[in-house]
Amino acid sequence: MNRQIVLRRRPTELLRPGDTELVTSAAPEPADGEALVRNTYVGIDAAVRTWLNDQPGYLPPVQLGEVIRAAGIGEVVATRCDAYSVGDVVTTLSGFQEYVIVRDDVFTTPVREQAVDQLAVMSVYGPTGATAYFGMTTIGKPQPGETVVVSAAAGATGSVAGQIAKIAGARVVGIAGGPEKCRVVVEDFGFDACIDYKSDDVPAALKAHCPRGVDVYFDNVGGPILDAVLGRLAPKARVVLCGVISSYLTGEHPGPANYVNLLAKTALMQGFNSLDMWGQFDEAFADLRRWADEGRLVHRQTVYEGIESCVDALNGLFTGTNIGKMLVKVSEPSGSAV
Amino acid sequence: MNRQIVLRRRPTELLRPGDTELVTSAAPEPADGEALVRNTYVGIDAAVRTWLNDQPGYLPPVQLGEVIRAAGIGEVVATRCDAYSVGDVVTTLSGFQEYVIVRDDVFTTPVREQAVDQLAVMSVYGPTGATAYFGMTTIGKPQPGETVVVSAAAGATGSVAGQIAKIAGARVVGIAGGPEKCRVVVEDFGFDACIDYKSDDVPAALKAHCPRGVDVYFDNVGGPILDAVLGRLAPKARVVLCGVISSYLTGEHPGPANYVNLLAKTALMQGFNSLDMWGQFDEAFADLRRWADEGRLVHRQTVYEGIESCVDALNGLFTGTNIGKMLVKVSEPSGSAV
Repeated sequence: MNRQIVLRRRPTELLRPGDTELVTSAAPEPADGEALVRNTYVGIDAAVRTWLNDQPGYLPPVQLGEVIRAAGIGEVVATRCDAYSVGDVVTTLSGFQEYVIVRDDVFTTPVREQAVDQLAVMSVYGPTGATAYFGMTTIGKPQPGETVVVSAAAGATGSVAGQIAKIAGARVVGIAGGPEKCRVVVEDFGFDACIDYKSDDVPAALKAHCPRGVDVYFDNVGGPILDAVLGRLAPKARVVLCGVISSYLTGEHPGPANYVNLLAKTALMQGFNSLDMWGQFDEAFADLRRWADEGRLVHRQTVYEGIESCVDALNGLFTGTNIGKMLVKVSEPSGSAV
Repeated sequence: MNRQIVLRRRPTELLRPGDTELVTSAAPEPADGEALVRNTYVGIDAAVRTWLNDQPGYLPPVQLGEVIRAAGIGEVVATRCDAYSVGDVVTTLSGFQEYVIVRDDVFTTPVREQAVDQLAVMSVYGPTGATAYFGMTTIGKPQPGETVVVSAAAGATGSVAGQIAKIAGARVVGIAGGPEKCRVVVEDFGFDACIDYKSDDVPAALKAHCPRGVDVYFDNVGGPILDAVLGRLAPKARVVLCGVISSYLTGEHPGPANYVNLLAKTALMQGFNSLDMWGQFDEAFADLRRWADEGRLVHRQTVYEGIESCVDALNGLFTGTNIGKMLVKVSEPSGSAV
């Protein structure tokens, strides 16, 4: 049987009962050229929430009645094609469900290593890590001695982005919500400081922590925090637009009045999508693995249990319950996986 | 005698009587290493207005009692240094006055050509033309067939920026205020179309004129027009931030809520200051002169008469009385000049 979470009604802010439904149907049978994957982990990304709004993005909105779209990882349990063998570990757009059919295409390269750390593949060695890597290295380009600020610094992308800036020799200041997250950002992820946006005066704290201004800002949140950092830019600053989590729930985005500083400081602000760099992901993962092996890069995950917890996990991403990558464990990985 | 306009009170919006005073004093005597310049034209730039606010910018604010700072051009009438000869044509930060002392420095290279078109040197072959050139060629980078939008399209910078995009093979849509400016933008400057922001619904007009979105936006105005264009960006769009004329009077800048499109369209928005390109100005002027000689680039000026008209001219820049570069003719250029 395949348990799936389908969209019944478009949510307005956080998902509420009735917005989704957990349905059970027979697990699909693979046809010729297909394989059946038992999902182990489903990734809970802010993008998932954007796909529930009736607004065009880089992917179309999820339609009512459809399984909620999400990235996942799993293991092939039945196959009718040459591309996949039983036991292969596969990353897919699995959705909020226990089983998914895959075809042989570029997004589902099977992993056949002896020991696959599926949690790591779903975070630092997946699109999340690639997003941090390419955003920081191709737009942010931190230089030794520069000051880098990262918002959502305890999150999956921010925690990696800040560590990459540290490796580049920059001074790195995080912004996160609450004392526990700020502690983790400094003690575990090695940032030089962390501003608690829930209790600190963010503009004043930025002034204190970034006396010479902000050379690179890696923005995951938008809203008033983006505006505050724009107000502290150093000359020739680079603002990496990675996400607008402050507005994903409501679709409303107050404009940052301090954008005029881009002109006064001859700075740039650039949006990006790591999928544009798909062909270079292996380079990114090679660097990230080397840094992790050298002990210079740590990654964390917050794991909810069971397909039925996907909605809670998605809401938790916006209420701030995760440190590192938010994932839902849908089934137990088999022997070789961690 | 030297007539000067000095700042007496910081203006709040347009300049009013009492904000400035026309004073008369003896023309200064050049000391050793100096020369005396009789100004012919004073350039009226939006930046002049920003220097009257008590806000730091790339140059400090004009202080109360000081001559209002502005770029100018003039002719050497007395010299006590080797760098300048009587008759040299010199561009300076002359200010709103009839005479200015110059020293031998990088910003006052004398021009000794037979016939100097001082009007052109103060517009297309000066920082204004360089701003249009470098903003469009180093950030905008229009490609053949792309759609380029330019605001303040009838102005000194916008009119040149749009023509550079045309020369690059792009389709160019201007935005200007009023039917006469729109006529000039299309008929004289050769844009493909022009939106009249005073009578048209700008978002609707952008949709009609830019059905595939806006690849390059050269922004001179900020405010709701910037927001409207951000709402129409094409994928990989480039937004060149050149000015924020909508906010220079009051210092207030509503933030552009559609900045989120920079993320959705993986676009960039970048501020610049052409003075950073000072070392490459000659390259820019060589291209601009060639295009003008080939009849592919036209430039226009609006000229007020007499130092006493500087304040009216500056206000006129914000009420929209100019087509092309706004200048004040302070004295008659001598023989060789046009």
